Amino acid sequence: MKAVIITIGNEILKGRTVNTNFSFIGKLLTFSGYNVSLGIIVPDNLDAIAAAFRNAAAYGDLIISSGGLGPTYDDMTLTGFARAFNLNLKLNETAFNMIKNKFDKITPEREKMAIIPEGSIPLKNDAGTAPGVYMEIDNKKYIILPGVPREVESIMNNFIEKIRIKNYVYLDESFTVNGIMESSLAPYIKNLMKDYGDMVYIKTHPKGNEIKSPVLEIEVSASGNDKNMVQETIKNVINMIKRDIDILQDKH
Amino acid sequence: MKAVIITIGNEILKGRTVNTNFSFIGKLLTFSGYNVSLGIIVPDNLDAIAAAFRNAAAYGDLIISSGGLGPTYDDMTLTGFARAFNLNLKLNETAFNMIKNKFDKITPEREKMAIIPEGSIPLKNDAGTAPGVYMEIDNKKYIILPGVPREVESIMNNFIEKIRIKNYVYLDESFTVNGIMESSLAPYIKNLMKDYGDMVYIKTHPKGNEIKSPVLEIEVSASGNDKNMVQETIKNVINMIKRDIDILQDKH
Repeated sequence: MKAVIITIGNEILKGRTVNTNFSFIGKLLTFSGYNVSLGIIVPDNLDAIAAAFRNAAAYGDLIISSGGLGPTYDDMTLTGFARAFNLNLKLNETAFNMIKNKFDKITPEREKMAIIPEGSIPLKNDAGTAPGVYMEIDNKKYIILPGVPREVESIMNNFIEKIRIKNYVYLDESFTVNGIMESSLAPYIKNLMKDYGDMVYIKTHPKGNEIKSPVLEIEVSASGNDKNMVQETIKNVINMIKRDIDILQDKH
Repeated sequence: MKAVIITIGNEILKGRTVNTNFSFIGKLLTFSGYNVSLGIIVPDNLDAIAAAFRNAAAYGDLIISSGGLGPTYDDMTLTGFARAFNLNLKLNETAFNMIKNKFDKITPEREKMAIIPEGSIPLKNDAGTAPGVYMEIDNKKYIILPGVPREVESIMNNFIEKIRIKNYVYLDESFTVNGIMESSLAPYIKNLMKDYGDMVYIKTHPKGNEIKSPVLEIEVSASGNDKNMVQETIKNVINMIKRDIDILQDKH
């Protein structure tokens, strides 16, 4: 199942805010059985938001957005989402009650957070005020989240069990080696990957100074339906690399 | 001038790595006069990389990518870029000399880093081995960077003066207020923005617990050709908000 993550907010594009929502959601989805295969980052702009949802819909089975779900003038994600798929926005009673419980007084800005697409389900936000929104359209799932990381995490940690792919295990393990350059190890890793076909993914991350004091993190990941087999495969590959690394180091 | 940032790498989509290259590049471009209006994140996959460059080209004047420029089998950004625009990849003498200076021995994996699109210019990488690549196609500028943050920063800090928009100033300033909820301030900010048209952008970032102990960061940004005027405008807006904030706080 392919997943697309959309991030909405000028502050991300301007580099003012580091996109930790993206990495949080990416990790949660990966370990829940999804193949996160596209990320789209757009500003607080209606047309851009609508275009992002339409592009994501053409591409993924699950689409998760964060940002633009609050009470301010530039929180326009739901209007953009509605525009993308011709939906009506309507005051949702459940969402309105969630919000009423949080404030002494309801203002138009607060009521706005309860106006969500018809047919969607509000998701409880234990860490803030704007409810998340869940909706299915044409067999695709949409989860629309606020931008505050605490709220993203709270809503998703509550909701993830409902969308987790059953019987799916993803695992990864990393280790670090010193004194070997990424370019020296490259042909060895390439061959090893070929041996395992699509089952195993090996990626090297250079950490030190590539020339003077190379430090290389080697990440091995695998996925499948049988947890023991996935674990065993990763262990075998790591043992193989560790065994061969001395020989490869000597070669250079 | 519109800019698009492309990030290439499974580790970003999986949430394994937080995308600090994106925020570094976003900030540098914003303060250099560009409007960063789209971000695209794709995996280490040729078709996905080519599609990202084609989409970016349809949208922006300047396109910057990071990731996938090293010696390993999954470093395929230049092949994807070449595929997107029907370019030939060819051993570049300047790039080859940059690489030869760094290694005792040239292997196919190392030579690969000097094979870049015909007509492109290699960019010196003082912090690593793979040169960056600069190219202009149909009046659009492309900068292709490696994925290691240290290398991205080194190449861009050297190169930014060449692409900076002259006579352009972007400035922002932030301050924090306690005890006022984002939703209380929203209608006031909305009106203030209207007064200034497109010149000033005000964004609020909730930081504390919105209900129990609200902490609100207020960011005011402006841009233009006259640095003094931009500075003055931001100062005026901030003073106005600070003056009114007591009244707004009492209201709630």
